[in-house]
Amino acid sequence: MHADVPATALGSDARDRVSGRTEYPSTVDRPGMLHARLLRSAVPHGRIRRLDASRAAALPGVHAVLTGETLRAIAGIETHYGPVLRDQPIVAMDVVRFVGEPVAAVAAEDLDTLDRALALIDVEYDELPSVFDGPGAFADGAPLVHETLASTSMAFAEIPIDQVASSNICHHYRLRTGDADRGLAGADFVFDDTFTSPVVQHVPLETHACVAEARPGHVTVWTGTQIPHGLRRTIAEIFHLPVTGVRIIVPTLGGGYGGKGHPTIEPVAAVLSLLTRRPVRIQLSREEEFVTITKHAASVRIVTGVSRDGMLLARRAECIFNTGAYADVGPRVAKNGGYGMAGPYRIPDISVDSYAVYTNLPPAGAFRAFGVPQGAWAYESQMDIIADRLGIDPVAIRRKNLLRDGEELSTGQLMEDSHFEELLDLVAPAVREDGVRAAEQRGRRTCRGTGFATIVKGTVTPSTSTAIVKLNQDGSADVLTSAVEMGQGFKKTMALIVGRELGISAGRVSVSDPDTDVTPYDQQTSSSRSTYATGSAVRQAAVKIRSQLLADASEQLEVAEADLELSDGRVAVVGTPSSGATIAEVMARSRRGNLIGDGMYRSEGGLDPSTGRGIASVHWHQAAGAADVEVDLDTGKISLLGFRTSVFAGQVINQVGAELQTEGNLAFGLGQALFEELLFDGGQVQNGNLGDYMVASILDMPPSMDVTFLEDPSGNVIHGLGETSLPTIMPAIANAVFAATGARVRELPITPERLLRALAAQPERGSAAVGTSA
Amino acid sequence: MHADVPATALGSDARDRVSGRTEYPSTVDRPGMLHARLLRSAVPHGRIRRLDASRAAALPGVHAVLTGETLRAIAGIETHYGPVLRDQPIVAMDVVRFVGEPVAAVAAEDLDTLDRALALIDVEYDELPSVFDGPGAFADGAPLVHETLASTSMAFAEIPIDQVASSNICHHYRLRTGDADRGLAGADFVFDDTFTSPVVQHVPLETHACVAEARPGHVTVWTGTQIPHGLRRTIAEIFHLPVTGVRIIVPTLGGGYGGKGHPTIEPVAAVLSLLTRRPVRIQLSREEEFVTITKHAASVRIVTGVSRDGMLLARRAECIFNTGAYADVGPRVAKNGGYGMAGPYRIPDISVDSYAVYTNLPPAGAFRAFGVPQGAWAYESQMDIIADRLGIDPVAIRRKNLLRDGEELSTGQLMEDSHFEELLDLVAPAVREDGVRAAEQRGRRTCRGTGFATIVKGTVTPSTSTAIVKLNQDGSADVLTSAVEMGQGFKKTMALIVGRELGISAGRVSVSDPDTDVTPYDQQTSSSRSTYATGSAVRQAAVKIRSQLLADASEQLEVAEADLELSDGRVAVVGTPSSGATIAEVMARSRRGNLIGDGMYRSEGGLDPSTGRGIASVHWHQAAGAADVEVDLDTGKISLLGFRTSVFAGQVINQVGAELQTEGNLAFGLGQALFEELLFDGGQVQNGNLGDYMVASILDMPPSMDVTFLEDPSGNVIHGLGETSLPTIMPAIANAVFAATGARVRELPITPERLLRALAAQPERGSAAVGTSA
Repeated sequence: MHADVPATALGSDARDRVSGRTEYPSTVDRPGMLHARLLRSAVPHGRIRRLDASRAAALPGVHAVLTGETLRAIAGIETHYGPVLRDQPIVAMDVVRFVGEPVAAVAAEDLDTLDRALALIDVEYDELPSVFDGPGAFADGAPLVHETLASTSMAFAEIPIDQVASSNICHHYRLRTGDADRGLAGADFVFDDTFTSPVVQHVPLETHACVAEARPGHVTVWTGTQIPHGLRRTIAEIFHLPVTGVRIIVPTLGGGYGGKGHPTIEPVAAVLSLLTRRPVRIQLSREEEFVTITKHAASVRIVTGVSRDGMLLARRAECIFNTGAYADVGPRVAKNGGYGMAGPYRIPDISVDSYAVYTNLPPAGAFRAFGVPQGAWAYESQMDIIADRLGIDPVAIRRKNLLRDGEELSTGQLMEDSHFEELLDLVAPAVREDGVRAAEQRGRRTCRGTGFATIVKGTVTPSTSTAIVKLNQDGSADVLTSAVEMGQGFKKTMALIVGRELGISAGRVSVSDPDTDVTPYDQQTSSSRSTYATGSAVRQAAVKIRSQLLADASEQLEVAEADLELSDGRVAVVGTPSSGATIAEVMARSRRGNLIGDGMYRSEGGLDPSTGRGIASVHWHQAAGAADVEVDLDTGKISLLGFRTSVFAGQVINQVGAELQTEGNLAFGLGQALFEELLFDGGQVQNGNLGDYMVASILDMPPSMDVTFLEDPSGNVIHGLGETSLPTIMPAIANAVFAATGARVRELPITPERLLRALAAQPERGSAAVGTSA
Repeated sequence: MHADVPATALGSDARDRVSGRTEYPSTVDRPGMLHARLLRSAVPHGRIRRLDASRAAALPGVHAVLTGETLRAIAGIETHYGPVLRDQPIVAMDVVRFVGEPVAAVAAEDLDTLDRALALIDVEYDELPSVFDGPGAFADGAPLVHETLASTSMAFAEIPIDQVASSNICHHYRLRTGDADRGLAGADFVFDDTFTSPVVQHVPLETHACVAEARPGHVTVWTGTQIPHGLRRTIAEIFHLPVTGVRIIVPTLGGGYGGKGHPTIEPVAAVLSLLTRRPVRIQLSREEEFVTITKHAASVRIVTGVSRDGMLLARRAECIFNTGAYADVGPRVAKNGGYGMAGPYRIPDISVDSYAVYTNLPPAGAFRAFGVPQGAWAYESQMDIIADRLGIDPVAIRRKNLLRDGEELSTGQLMEDSHFEELLDLVAPAVREDGVRAAEQRGRRTCRGTGFATIVKGTVTPSTSTAIVKLNQDGSADVLTSAVEMGQGFKKTMALIVGRELGISAGRVSVSDPDTDVTPYDQQTSSSRSTYATGSAVRQAAVKIRSQLLADASEQLEVAEADLELSDGRVAVVGTPSSGATIAEVMARSRRGNLIGDGMYRSEGGLDPSTGRGIASVHWHQAAGAADVEVDLDTGKISLLGFRTSVFAGQVINQVGAELQTEGNLAFGLGQALFEELLFDGGQVQNGNLGDYMVASILDMPPSMDVTFLEDPSGNVIHGLGETSLPTIMPAIANAVFAATGARVRELPITPERLLRALAAQPERGSAAVGTSA
C-alpha cells in the first residue's frame, strides 16, 4: 500500500485501470440479479398484428416478458420517453418504426434461457411503407414515420422545438442573418454543392450496460450514462416519482462519445425490475449497439457567394439530419449543425434551414462534436473548391475570411478571444508541394498532397454544473460531481484543479463517481464542457475551502491571511515553505471535521426561435488541422502520412489527457473520413459488426502526429478540448486528397471506390469547382 | 408507484423496512466475495507457544489464513488499532488477553470450509496469570494485562489519556471540586455504599457484519458502524493511506446501542481482503457478539455527606470501570461516569476518582448512555437510602437538592435550562402507598411500591457535525450526512427538519446513508447527539437553500423576499398559499441545476486533566422516572406494573420516534434492572447465547407506560433523547422494590435470589440505610 498515489503523467485511476480493478457499468453485479434481452423488430415499419409471448413466459427461468400490451397495462407509468420529445416507447406499442426496435423484453435467470425465450415469441406485422433517407423523408408524399406529434419532455425542455405536423420534420431550425438572397445576387461567384455524411456509430469499447433495481417508490440504476441527473429525471417522469425516488449511479464508462448521452436501455430495465422485483441487467451486444443510437446521416446543400478576390459574401444552407425513427436529441443536433454553417468565417448574409427528419432507421443522437462535423465537412470542403476555382491558396483564402475579435458570428454574437489565424499558422508548413505535379515529375502512380481545415464549434449553452469539495481532516480532499469519467481523464483533471488551489498533491484528491442522491447536479458530460464548466464549479468550491482554511490558519498561527500560502500540504508563511503548520494540523485545531465548499457554473444563452440568432455558445472551441496524404492512383487507397492539429486550449490543465484526447480524435475522424459507414438495405443493417464495419486501427494512424495547444498567457481561460479537433479531420483529409489528385469526393467516407469514380470523372485538375460566375 | 411517500407517523424508510427491502450491513453481497471467520483464544491470558495453520491453509477453498505471524510479515501496515489507545492487535500477536480473542482469521469460499479450516488450526498456549474483576485488577500485585503502555490513536486523540505504567489502569479521571474531606467532615450523616453493575451486552438484532474490499492504495468497507468517518481514519492509519484511500459505506444498521461505536471486525476483514484481493465478509454469530464488545462492569463506592434536613453537602466517589483486555473507548466511559457522579444535584464538595482498568475479559466499550447508568445506579439508589434514613420523602429529598439554573454542576459548569423539578413532578403521582403496609393489610405475600430516579447526562463534547442539503429541480431534496440510521428514526427526523424549512413534505426528502467519499463529516452517531448536532447542521444547510430560493423567487416574481413564504412545495406570497410559483418552477427558471447548502455544528468544551473540571457537555439531558412494582415475597419475583418517564426534549421533532426511543429504553433498562448479566467462569462466558442470557421480552414490559416530553415553549431548543431516560430505570425499579419491601439490593441485576437474600438480611423495614451519624 502506498500513502500517496503518484499523480504525474497518469490519472489517479490509472493503477486500477491497468490492473483490471476499475468498476464499469458492465461489471456491476447485484445479488439476485436477472438478465434481460430485447426481441427486436424484423421490419422497418409496421403494425404489430399479433404478438404471442405466452410460450416464452411459460419457460422455466423466465421471470417477466414485457410487450407493448403489458406495458400499457402497468398502472401509473409513462410509456414513452425521450430527451427532447417524448416519442419513444419503452417497448414498441402497436407500431414498429425501424428494424431493431425492441418489441418485447424478457427477464430471466440466465442468458441461455433468454435466448430460448426470445425464440419462442411470435410476432406478425402488417408492414407499412418506409422511408430511409433524409431527403426522401423530407419530400412531399413520403410515408409518415409518426402519425402524430409527440409531447415535449420535461426533463430537457430548454429549447423550443418546431415540429411540423403531418410531415417527418421533427425539428426545423432557421437562421436568418442579413439578406442571403441579396448577398448571393451580388456575389461574383456562387458555389452550390451538396455534401453527405453517412450513418456511423460511436463504437465505444464498452457497449451499453445497466442494472436497474426497482421497488414501489424507488428505482436505482447503475448505468453507463453521460447524463446522470437527466436520466434521473427521465426515470422519475416515467414512474411519476420525485427525483429523490430515483438514484442513478455511474461507474467509469468504457467510452461514450455521445452514444450514452441520453436514456436508451435504462427505462426498459427499470420496468422489468419493477415487474420482477429483482435487479435486472441489460448489456447490449455489439450488433445491438448499431441499432440503438447512431450519428446522424446528413445531407448538406451549401450555396456560397464570393467575391472575385475570395471574400465570402453570402451563404444559404439546407441541412437535412436523418434522426431515424425517434427524435432522441436530433433537434439539437440540427440546431447545432445549423448555426455552425458559417464556420469560423465572416459571412454577412446567411440563411440556414436545418431539419431533423424522422426516417425508418435506428435513432440518431448525440455524437462527438454534435452536428458540427456534418456541417464542417460541407463548408471546409467547399472552401477548397472555391479556393481552387479562384486560384487562391487554401490557407490564404481562409486567412482572408477568418473571424476576428469583435466581428459577428452567424448568430449575431460578437466573436471574442479568437485565435483562428494563429491556429492555422501552427499547422501550415512553410513549403507545400503540388501533389499531382510531384507525382507526375517522379513518374509514379502515387501522389501526395496537403489539405487544411479550420473550424469553430460551440459548447452546449446555456448549461449548468455544480460541485462540492470537502477537505478532510488529514488534508486530503474529496470532490463530488456528477460529471462522468469515460476515459477522457475527467477525474485526474479535477484532482489537478483542486490540488493546485489547495496546495496538495492530486494523488490526495479523490473524485466521485456520479451518484445522483449525493453528487450535485451536472447537466451532462458532453460537448467538451467538463473541464471548463464542471471545472469552474469545482474550482469555486476549492477556492471557498482555501479561503476558510487560510482564515482558520491565520487565527491559529497569528499570521495575516495575506502572508500565508498553501503548498505541499502545508499552510506556510509566504516564501518559507517549511513554516506554519500542516493542513492536517490546522484542520485538527479548527475541529471543523471537514471543510465544505460548493460551486456553481451557469452560462446564459439561447437562440431566438424565429431568427435562430442569439447566444449559441458561451465561448468558442477553435481548431485547425492539416493532413498530409498519399494516394495510390491505381487502387484509390489513401494513406495518411501525417496530421498536424492545433487547438486553442486557454490553459491546459491535464497535458497528457489533452494530447490523448486530441490524438483520439484523429483515430476517430480518420475512420469517418476513410472507412466508416453503416450500410442499410431496406432498413436492415448490413455491416453491424466489427468485422464488416471498419473503424480505424492503429495501423491506419499516420507515422507523424503533431498536436499543439495554443494557451492563453493570462492562465485564466479554460476551454474544453475533448472533441474540438474532430471536425477538422474529415475535410482536411478530403482537401489533401484533392490537393494530391484534383479529385473531389462529396460523400463520406472517401472510399477507394468513390475516389476512383471521382478521379475518372475529373478530366483535369482544377475543374472540380462547380462555381458559376454570377 | 407513488409520487409521494406519505411521511406521517412512519419514517420514509418504513415501507422498505416492513417489506424486507432495506439493505443492512448483513445483506451486503459483492461479486466474488469470500467469507471469513475468526479462531478465538480458549485461554484468558497466555503466550502463544505454537500456532500451526498449515493444514487450514492447505484446505481447498481456503484463500488466506491470517495469524499474528503473517500479520507481522505484511509490510507497511499498523498491526494495532483502537479508538483511544492503539492497544488492540488485528489478530493476537504472541499474547492473548481474553477468552474469545481472535488468534487467527480464515477467508474461504464458503462457511462450511471455514468451519473445517478453523478446526484444523492448532494453537498451544503458555498460560499466564489472569484477573477478571475491576477491583481485583486495580489491586497491588494484580497480574498485568498489558506489560507496556500503548500509544494513543490519532483518529480520536481529543482527550488526554492518563495511563498508569506497570498497572492495569488504562485511564484515571480525577474530579476535584471544593474540598470533599472538609465537606464530609462537616456533614451530619455520611453514607458509604458500594454499588455494582455487571457486564452486559448490547444485543442488537443484527450482529456485527461487514464486507471489505481492499486493493493496493484503496480500501472500501460496507459495515455496520456508528462512526463512519472515525473508522475511515482508523483504516487509513492501519494502511498508511490518506483518508481518500478509504471508503466506508454504511447501510441501515439493525441496532447499535454503542456496540458498533468503534472498529471491531473491519480491520481484520480489510487485511484479509488485501491478502486475497477479493471482497471479504465477516458476520459475527450471536455467541461471538458477547466476546466482542460489552458494557463495562463497574464497581462504584459512593460516600455522601448530608445535613440532618437532607441537603447533600459532599461526596467522594471511586468508580472502577472494567474495560476488559483492550481499552476501546473505556477511558471516555470512565470520564463520563466520573464527572456524572454528582447527578442532577447541588453538591458543593466533590472528589471523584474514576478508573478504566484492564482485565482479562472481552473489551468493554460504548454502551447506551455511556458510563452514566453505572453512576446513576449508585447515586440514585443511595439517595433513597439517605431519604429513608432521614425519614424524608424520596421525592422531597430530590426536590431539595436538584440543580437550578445558575448553580454549578460538579465540573464547575453553570447549569442552564434546568427542568429537573418539573420532570419529577410529571412522574410523581398524587398519592403513594407504603408498599409493605399495604401488603400486610391485605394479608397477602405480595407488596407494591413506587420508586423514583432523576438523572442528568451529557452529550459528547466537544463534537462536530457537518451536512449538505441539495434542493433538486423538481423541488425534492437530498440530505447528505454521515450520521447513521440504526432504527432510531434518524432519517425521518432529518427529513422533517428539511421539509419544515423548505415547505415541502418530508416524503420528498431523501436522506443519504453514510458514504465517506461523498457524505460530509459527522463525528459519531452516539450519545443522543444526532437530532441536535447533525440536525443543527442540516437545518443550517436548509436555511441557506431557503434563503437562495427566496432570493431567486423574489427576482422572478418581483415580490420582496420578506413577503414570500415556502409551503406545500410553493414559493407563495405570505398569506396567499396558491400565489407565486412552485419550487420546481422557480428552480427551472433560475437554471441553477440544484441549490446546495452546507452546515456545520461544532461544540466547544473539554475537561482540565488535573481537576477534571471544565465544559463536560454542551447541554444537559434531563429525565425523571417512576417505577411501580409488585414483589412476590416468597419467590422474590419482581413485576413492573407501570413506568412513568419524563424527558426534557426542547422541541420534539419526530413524536413517534421520540416515544419509541423512550419506550425502547424501558425494555433496555428493565432487562438490565432485573435480568441481564454476562457470567464468566475463569474468563469463559457462561451464558453467551439468547437462551441463557436474558433480555427483557414483551411479556416483561409493564401494562402501563407513560412517556411525557417537556418542551421548550420557544421552539428553538432541541435535545436528543434516544438514551436520556435509560439511566433512571434501574435505580427507579430498585427504589420501588425498596419502597415495597424495605430490602436494598446493591448489585445489578436485581434477581430473585439477590432480593430474597436482601429480604432475609433486613430484619426490619427502614434499617437498610448504612448511614453513620457524623
